[in-house]
Amino acid sequence: MAADRDFHHIENDDQYKGLNVNKGVDQPQTFNEDSIKRFLKHKRKKVMTADTYVEGILAGNITMLSQAVTLVESSKREHQEIASEIITRCLPYSGKSLRIGITGVPGVGKSTFIESMGKFITRRGGKLAVLAIDPSSERSKGSILGDKTRMEELSSDPNAYIRPSPSAGSLGGVARKTRETIVLCEAAGFDTIFIETVGVGQSETMVHSMVDFFLLLMLAGAGDELQGIKRGIMEMADAITINKADGNNIEKAEMARVQYLNALHLFPPTDSGWTPKVLTCSAFHHLGIDKIWETIEAYVELVKKNGYFQHRRNEQSRYWMYETINDRLKSDFYQNNELKEMTAAFEQKVLGQEMSSFVAARELLENYYQFKKSNK
Amino acid sequence: MAADRDFHHIENDDQYKGLNVNKGVDQPQTFNEDSIKRFLKHKRKKVMTADTYVEGILAGNITMLSQAVTLVESSKREHQEIASEIITRCLPYSGKSLRIGITGVPGVGKSTFIESMGKFITRRGGKLAVLAIDPSSERSKGSILGDKTRMEELSSDPNAYIRPSPSAGSLGGVARKTRETIVLCEAAGFDTIFIETVGVGQSETMVHSMVDFFLLLMLAGAGDELQGIKRGIMEMADAITINKADGNNIEKAEMARVQYLNALHLFPPTDSGWTPKVLTCSAFHHLGIDKIWETIEAYVELVKKNGYFQHRRNEQSRYWMYETINDRLKSDFYQNNELKEMTAAFEQKVLGQEMSSFVAARELLENYYQFKKSNK
Repeated sequence: MAADRDFHHIENDDQYKGLNVNKGVDQPQTFNEDSIKRFLKHKRKKVMTADTYVEGILAGNITMLSQAVTLVESSKREHQEIASEIITRCLPYSGKSLRIGITGVPGVGKSTFIESMGKFITRRGGKLAVLAIDPSSERSKGSILGDKTRMEELSSDPNAYIRPSPSAGSLGGVARKTRETIVLCEAAGFDTIFIETVGVGQSETMVHSMVDFFLLLMLAGAGDELQGIKRGIMEMADAITINKADGNNIEKAEMARVQYLNALHLFPPTDSGWTPKVLTCSAFHHLGIDKIWETIEAYVELVKKNGYFQHRRNEQSRYWMYETINDRLKSDFYQNNELKEMTAAFEQKVLGQEMSSFVAARELLENYYQFKKSNK
Repeated sequence: MAADRDFHHIENDDQYKGLNVNKGVDQPQTFNEDSIKRFLKHKRKKVMTADTYVEGILAGNITMLSQAVTLVESSKREHQEIASEIITRCLPYSGKSLRIGITGVPGVGKSTFIESMGKFITRRGGKLAVLAIDPSSERSKGSILGDKTRMEELSSDPNAYIRPSPSAGSLGGVARKTRETIVLCEAAGFDTIFIETVGVGQSETMVHSMVDFFLLLMLAGAGDELQGIKRGIMEMADAITINKADGNNIEKAEMARVQYLNALHLFPPTDSGWTPKVLTCSAFHHLGIDKIWETIEAYVELVKKNGYFQHRRNEQSRYWMYETINDRLKSDFYQNNELKEMTAAFEQKVLGQEMSSFVAARELLENYYQFKKSNK
């Protein structure tokens, strides 16, 4: 079409002098070049090799990192394959960050805390990735997607990367995705990783099994704020921080601090040799955030010196290998359609005291292995 | 031989009058009649049917009960089969007892406590069975066999049945044996079952999953008595009892009681709706035992009323069915000789950051299922 624009207009010849014909204007294109570019880019993305991703990630390219995380989260087999390759190749560059688990019931001010703590870290020259574990079945309100808009400052910080939680799935699936995302973030140069979760479900145990330091956020109150915290979570904490310690809440927060401290003293010592600390802070007013960071640094110094840091990392890698095996062994059994009905029927017999739990289990297993053999 | 004794002695005839010959004495038998009886009894025992055992157990015959428990503990296939039949037939008569878990580190005075509490129960007309869980790998000293000789009064009490712990085995194996022994004891008319364990290992969680009430024995002290108690055990307790609260230890025990009470208040509420209690006692001087029993009765009244008692029993039956399945699924994988070497090699790769935990798991599983299919 561009060629047409300059074609010879006979009306402009000398013999028609006086008659002036204007040059034609550009015609709107019959197709959208931009969308073609985007289409081609999309096509290119599809055929991008693991090489490209790995190079991009190692160069700290956030777009590449994000796309790789999306592949990790995808359930498509082709995506899974390329994701596996990326992970494997990023593994040697991973492990250098400090992984911190942050938990607390909704309302405790987790987003504000992460924003305040996060800015503190990036101001010191750190690079922070914030991941969230949010099994949808366990949570009724709030999500990091919403949080992202609330973590305004942090989300516009070039040294911070906020990744919304993967779409719901089994806890095992979420664990794999999160662990692998940690690897990618570390390879991309993030030196601090926050893994955020809500203190109401099983996900804390999972987060605890993938972090170096576990921080529990609490509020001051008459003890009833614990209603939402699952039993055992307090025992996992390396530090408890009582948030919203500001204004006329300071005294209450201090009282709560002493109470939790007394409670923690009654717990048996941790494997790390670290005595869990109780602190107060006001994330909103950025008070006490430095003390929390000092506490984390003191912890890291201790456990790197006594060898617990690497020991725990190794235990975690081992744990996730075996945990994944165990998880899939179970799902292969329980998702076996031939067995589902029998299992349900046996459960009823067990509840009705017609069958012992152990006899029921044995008979179900015999059927299962028979089925595996015959089902070529 | 008895006939020989009366045979005619010619020396006693009238013609030899004056000559008196004494009757001969019994000769020692050339074989041991008792051992023959025992041998025959043993032969009979071998061919005894499940009927005989079940009848005996339901009639409260302790010998039959003991022999059936031995069958439950046996690893021989023929014994297992008859044991399964006995269990299944006793099941409808089981479930009527109160099952109490008792734990505490060595030195806390468990045997003395069980003896004191046990006598208290039998004096009230109760029938008590004491079972022990004692995975040998977890315990270095003391065993209920020794305890039995220390529980002198209780072991000679016709209304008490003390069963030493089954010989060591996997935790899963010990669990099955204990659960099935509970069924037999209940069918034999025992209305209270103590399940004793040492508060240092995994066995507490197991015991907690088979009892109605979980009692933790403690000593007064500066908190260091907790060293031996595993994290999380305190949270499982329905009551904590500070033992040896006598003489000049009374004050210290009372202080410890208040401390634990404060700590327990910080824990989230239990599913049962019950607030765990902290008590003191002196098992040696039989002080405070009645209060503990009253506490247990108050608990039972509450949970029978609110439905938690039966709910928990059902959950436990269900739990053990699924736990057994999961346990055997795992052992089938990990005891697979073809896979053992590969698993170990992959673990090393995972630790050396050459392979992600999840990729390692996936490849191992693919091999396993391939093996199961081809191995007719």
